[in-house]
Amino acid sequence: MQTILQIDFPFVGPFAEEMHQAMQALAESIIEEPGLIWKIWTENPSTQEAGGIYLFSDEQSAQNYLAMHSARLTASGVTDIRAKLFAVNAPLSQICQGPIQ
Amino acid sequence: MQTILQIDFPFVGPFAEEMHQAMQALAESIIEEPGLIWKIWTENPSTQEAGGIYLFSDEQSAQNYLAMHSARLTASGVTDIRAKLFAVNAPLSQICQGPIQ
Repeated sequence: MQTILQIDFPFVGPFAEEMHQAMQALAESIIEEPGLIWKIWTENPSTQEAGGIYLFSDEQSAQNYLAMHSARLTASGVTDIRAKLFAVNAPLSQICQGPIQ
Repeated sequence: MQTILQIDFPFVGPFAEEMHQAMQALAESIIEEPGLIWKIWTENPSTQEAGGIYLFSDEQSAQNYLAMHSARLTASGVTDIRAKLFAVNAPLSQICQGPIQ
């Protein structure tokens, strides 16, 4: 079942184009992760937060990625990671043009 | 600037197809909201939560929707609504095939 992973955490930057430059190689690796369909990178300079919205093909892939990514974030100094997994309600999402598959 | 709104809240059901049946008319109204590009409907029966991931064309539309939708949820008995707004990092999202526009 397709699974949404939403992650956010306190983040002091870089944001916007500087974030792009700093994390381009990471993004190129993330899209190769097993089961990942897409990721939207999220950022909020005013609240000093960042994160991501991910769509995975199945729940196990999402759980595996979350374990790996949480460890990677923690190793880079990120604390207070907030992560939630959700199933997609496909028919309601389709009515709302949600980009599921 | 395109804006992600992530919302989740405690929810005891209905889930899955019963949720679809109960909320089809609501979904048909939501896709008509100003500035909304898409919504993915999210649900987690095991944690008793539900919510949505939304992409809006601009931050003001997202804030307007959040105010309206929070009042609607509260009126229907939902409490402890957790909502966050984020800008989209477009170049990183494009690398990860994120469904932005």
